Amino acid sequence: MELIEAADVTVIARGAAILGAGGGGDPWLGSLMAQHAIERHGPVRLVPPGELQDDAFVLPVALMGAPTVIVEKAPAGDEFRRAFASLEQYRGRAVSHVGCLEVGGLNSMVPIVSAAMTGLPLVDADGMGRAFPELQMVLLTVDGISCSPMALADEKGNALLLTAVDNEWAERIARSATVEMGCSATIALYPLNGREARESLVPHTLTLARDLGLLVEQTRAAHEDAAEAVAAHARGRVLARGTVVDVQRRTVAGFARGSAIIEGFDEWAGSRLELDFQNEHLVARLDGELVASVPDLICVLDAENGEPLTTESLRFGYRVAVLALPCHERWRTAAALELVGPRKFGYDHDYRPVAP
Amino acid sequence: MELIEAADVTVIARGAAILGAGGGGDPWLGSLMAQHAIERHGPVRLVPPGELQDDAFVLPVALMGAPTVIVEKAPAGDEFRRAFASLEQYRGRAVSHVGCLEVGGLNSMVPIVSAAMTGLPLVDADGMGRAFPELQMVLLTVDGISCSPMALADEKGNALLLTAVDNEWAERIARSATVEMGCSATIALYPLNGREARESLVPHTLTLARDLGLLVEQTRAAHEDAAEAVAAHARGRVLARGTVVDVQRRTVAGFARGSAIIEGFDEWAGSRLELDFQNEHLVARLDGELVASVPDLICVLDAENGEPLTTESLRFGYRVAVLALPCHERWRTAAALELVGPRKFGYDHDYRPVAP
Repeated sequence: MELIEAADVTVIARGAAILGAGGGGDPWLGSLMAQHAIERHGPVRLVPPGELQDDAFVLPVALMGAPTVIVEKAPAGDEFRRAFASLEQYRGRAVSHVGCLEVGGLNSMVPIVSAAMTGLPLVDADGMGRAFPELQMVLLTVDGISCSPMALADEKGNALLLTAVDNEWAERIARSATVEMGCSATIALYPLNGREARESLVPHTLTLARDLGLLVEQTRAAHEDAAEAVAAHARGRVLARGTVVDVQRRTVAGFARGSAIIEGFDEWAGSRLELDFQNEHLVARLDGELVASVPDLICVLDAENGEPLTTESLRFGYRVAVLALPCHERWRTAAALELVGPRKFGYDHDYRPVAP
Repeated sequence: MELIEAADVTVIARGAAILGAGGGGDPWLGSLMAQHAIERHGPVRLVPPGELQDDAFVLPVALMGAPTVIVEKAPAGDEFRRAFASLEQYRGRAVSHVGCLEVGGLNSMVPIVSAAMTGLPLVDADGMGRAFPELQMVLLTVDGISCSPMALADEKGNALLLTAVDNEWAERIARSATVEMGCSATIALYPLNGREARESLVPHTLTLARDLGLLVEQTRAAHEDAAEAVAAHARGRVLARGTVVDVQRRTVAGFARGSAIIEGFDEWAGSRLELDFQNEHLVARLDGELVASVPDLICVLDAENGEPLTTESLRFGYRVAVLALPCHERWRTAAALELVGPRKFGYDHDYRPVAP
């Protein structure tokens, strides 16, 4: 894929929803914005990270806040330009490429909107290869790259330039400012040079999202099994197929925590799969045994049509297929697991890598 | 006063505590910091606003947050330089003068510390002539002057540059960032040119604080009445003298609200004065009749030694004198009263100006 045309957007959005591992926000509204921006400003040029020159100035963009609010209070459009301008002024040079931090969910679409509006090329990569709830949870942090200076802009015209002592402090301060701004804000952060973008981002993830999205479409058309096809393409496996028989939710400190129980059918008849989630799916247990855990991707698809389901959309009676897809191998180091491993999310067990 | 020497600091602090109208935070810790900074870096040159050239770049500084926390978590010192540097970079020119936003309480001392450390002259003026709880409550706002760009820095090294759509939004966003930073932060805001500083600040208020502080000292030495002397100097009047017989406090949305009842003695024997406060004193009623209200200054002094008392330090049994001092005349316009009049603080009555 060298160009993202308006017609590609919904396909990428579907794949991004799979890579969201249940979280990251439904990309639907973002896909409308991205289509609109491409129709108005022209297609977006997608650049593989390997083609970046060292002196490139890559600026990743995202929305911060509660996806439920973002859906109701869409960015006005001007935020991207203002966030870019403030970092360009700070750095004294122009941004050369738009970047993506979180390919999973809504934040796959935000860089497409931004690239279309600014006319800049978009790097085919992201900071995590999935979705995570906090801004420091990217491989860039593991590599010691600061998210500062970071720009934050809201739809009212408020703008903020933050230089934090570390990425955790940036998360805390930016989160509280975002809440005050009405629970959503456009952010531009982790300004990268070409070498950093080549070495620290997960490459080709927008293309991967497009491929997964297409796969669901093609297998459905061919009456084949989307879950098996997605698992095979991403070198993961189907953990179970079954019916949702219970969903518990509670909001804890601004995060949507909960769990779901799935009673197996097909070859999993008589088995019981339990999912825990906090925005994203965190761990999966099959008959009490841990079969997948964060940072691997635990994804839930509609068993009939292969459409990805977010944790918010899980309902009693839904027939689903649950997949585990391996995370990027760099998430499996000790330093990375300290940032996003099961213990970080309150579990007292180690990460158990999923194997195909 | 042309120079502020270390010995002037406690005198200014005492006068600033009077002008704090019960709030603004106890200037004691600030006075230690200011003395220390002057002993280390030399005296601070005080410049009357009338002497400012049009092209001056005046940068007011203050501490934001809960005074109780500021006392425990003093600025490291470096915050001033970082806050200045970020606005100097933004504006592309060097600050020429330090400014004061709030002469009442602790924030009278912060500009002295900052001026001593940076070696810059300090403008003998402030934004309100008293203390108020929110950053938009300055005459600059009435004159349509934006507090943005505004710098915010904490003792850990986090820094923020905020451009808000209006001063109320700046207050909201900066307040929430301050809370996240641990409830106190150094702020530099309302960057002014010389004309704005001349026309919109309340002139000579640091000198006034020094004069009031001296007056208390002199009348005490002469066994005269400090309260009468302060009232006469500031063209106000003594509302009552009496004993504190009740103090009610509650913390509402981060503000210290409450009330105190004072049973009169001397010529006020048999009368009862009621004070309402929210950080600062808001209204005073004598035998049920409104006798003073915000934005006029309602100040409580120790009846014996003339020392100013903050709302937090009021206790059962204290013998006090309650004064009402007129606010700056520009606070008495309709537009200004919309910002800081009684209705702004939840009262359903209009402002009644205090007369000598």
